[in-house]
Amino acid sequence: MINYAGKKALITGGLGFIGSALARALVAQGAAVTVVDSLIPQYGGNLFNVADISNRLCINICDVRDSFALTHLLRDQDYLFNLAAQTSHVDSMTDPKSDLEINAAAQLAMLEACRQVNPGIRIVFTSTRQLYGRPDYLPVDEAHPIRPVDVNGINKLSGEWYHLLYSNVYGIRSSVLRLTNTYGPGMRVRDARQTFLGIWVRQMIEGKPITVFGDGMQLRDFNYVDDCVDALLLAGASDVAVGRVYNLGSGEVTGLKALAELLVAMGRRMNLDCQYRLMPYPSERKSIDIGDYYGEFSRIRNELGWQPRTGLEAGLQSTLNYYVANHVHYWEASGAERQA
Amino acid sequence: MINYAGKKALITGGLGFIGSALARALVAQGAAVTVVDSLIPQYGGNLFNVADISNRLCINICDVRDSFALTHLLRDQDYLFNLAAQTSHVDSMTDPKSDLEINAAAQLAMLEACRQVNPGIRIVFTSTRQLYGRPDYLPVDEAHPIRPVDVNGINKLSGEWYHLLYSNVYGIRSSVLRLTNTYGPGMRVRDARQTFLGIWVRQMIEGKPITVFGDGMQLRDFNYVDDCVDALLLAGASDVAVGRVYNLGSGEVTGLKALAELLVAMGRRMNLDCQYRLMPYPSERKSIDIGDYYGEFSRIRNELGWQPRTGLEAGLQSTLNYYVANHVHYWEASGAERQA
Repeated sequence: MINYAGKKALITGGLGFIGSALARALVAQGAAVTVVDSLIPQYGGNLFNVADISNRLCINICDVRDSFALTHLLRDQDYLFNLAAQTSHVDSMTDPKSDLEINAAAQLAMLEACRQVNPGIRIVFTSTRQLYGRPDYLPVDEAHPIRPVDVNGINKLSGEWYHLLYSNVYGIRSSVLRLTNTYGPGMRVRDARQTFLGIWVRQMIEGKPITVFGDGMQLRDFNYVDDCVDALLLAGASDVAVGRVYNLGSGEVTGLKALAELLVAMGRRMNLDCQYRLMPYPSERKSIDIGDYYGEFSRIRNELGWQPRTGLEAGLQSTLNYYVANHVHYWEASGAERQA
Repeated sequence: MINYAGKKALITGGLGFIGSALARALVAQGAAVTVVDSLIPQYGGNLFNVADISNRLCINICDVRDSFALTHLLRDQDYLFNLAAQTSHVDSMTDPKSDLEINAAAQLAMLEACRQVNPGIRIVFTSTRQLYGRPDYLPVDEAHPIRPVDVNGINKLSGEWYHLLYSNVYGIRSSVLRLTNTYGPGMRVRDARQTFLGIWVRQMIEGKPITVFGDGMQLRDFNYVDDCVDALLLAGASDVAVGRVYNLGSGEVTGLKALAELLVAMGRRMNLDCQYRLMPYPSERKSIDIGDYYGEFSRIRNELGWQPRTGLEAGLQSTLNYYVANHVHYWEASGAERQA
């Protein structure tokens, strides 16, 4: 139904988790794909994520804050899938300046570059459900008040608004997707910077207990990465989506303790030595935690025909299989870690 | 009732319109006041604004983007009245990067500096009613949806949220005032960058017609600068105001054509040769105009006891008197202007 064959697409954050999966889908359709990634070690970029398609891609290593490079790279593109971000909520509080530079200032600079050299480009920007803050009601729809609880939420919201503003005022056609917890092969598993599911998977494979913060009753929704990629492709191909904001979400809502129990049961069937434990919130996370969250995604279902196709257990199984086979490419036990 | 005697207060934008009036009020109470101003020619700073109190102030010329200077200056202050801003909506679209640097990045850097060197400081941040965008209802209260229509609105909102976040998470006690159109002696009258009332006053004194964009039926509310200063002093002195956002506003709501007619009548009584004309919106203003606006200010009235004391005609009269006497300090007719 969607056809990107012969189109030119730039993916910022294209060596990251979702960006690399999107690159794979676009390459499979015959698009000419350029991926931009900074390979900042604390972020999600990993060349192994595109190892299977590296000869069918243009890989350009640079930071989205490098506005001269981006201005050159944006020229002549049909699509910009704008995924590069600082995603760690805790890091946004300890290093707010970098978060602002990447999530707000670089976004504005890229939009200015598009306005100057490529106003006909079609943009899809990935945002986050975190900017709703602590929900007033569940499921959270797009009309829910915006109430960012950390520097990351404030700056991601600026990034959204720059895109919508440039769409409305200058006709730089843009869509915004507010992602919820996304998981799957290629996610950062070295630590919890991208998603807590990452560190859980690492802990399982290393034979360490999964750590669940709080009482484990916090509800969350999850999208498997292929479903997230579907949403990106649909949004980029739809005229209806121009100037629009869409939540993603899932019909399956799960408590964190129940999720940990599910993973432990799955791991044991794979002969992994795994268990979980409840731990009090660390203080730097407590103050920015948002309680329960799950999203209403009927807008994107009705307007773009999107819905998630991969169930939670199936998605988790393929994720575990992937990291059991490939974990050497995602972390290596250092001396310091062995001592810890 | 409010007593700043013996307190140390830093005012960013302190040579500007509202900042200088606030400095005068604080000095009168016996506060030790430092004003910081960049004196960027397109902005509101003007040494003449503090000429009458210059020997009772510390005047420090620097840009709020100079984070080393600000970190030094913020040390040991009891209060930060954080007024420095890029205020031109049109300039925010032609130079979005400077708007972001001043209205968002510098704000975050100042809050980080406070967190590191002076977490006990009390901050009042001035924001703008522009971030409500085109109102859904009137009068606009603080619960009205946020919908910035230009880069300035997006970045001012980030500035607000950084202040509220640092207040909530780190206890850097901050209050936010969302100002509406403020006018009075000391406002920028060289052009319309700060307020359209500025250029109107200049046009009146120069014997040129006041230019009203559109049909002149757009409603607005106005605060005389002394009332705005009252609100700043009340907010800084109140524990209730910590972490709170307050609209300012006025009981008098006026259409722009009616305002022009009032000014023309007042000017003629002062023997000024004045008139007004209606003009279609210039394209760069049309796309970011917000229609009618007036604010609901019962929150600040109820919580802090603030209400405006100066009526529109009395305030305009003192403004006109001031610029008739002092306009030489606010603009000089250049060769280019004489030709125009």
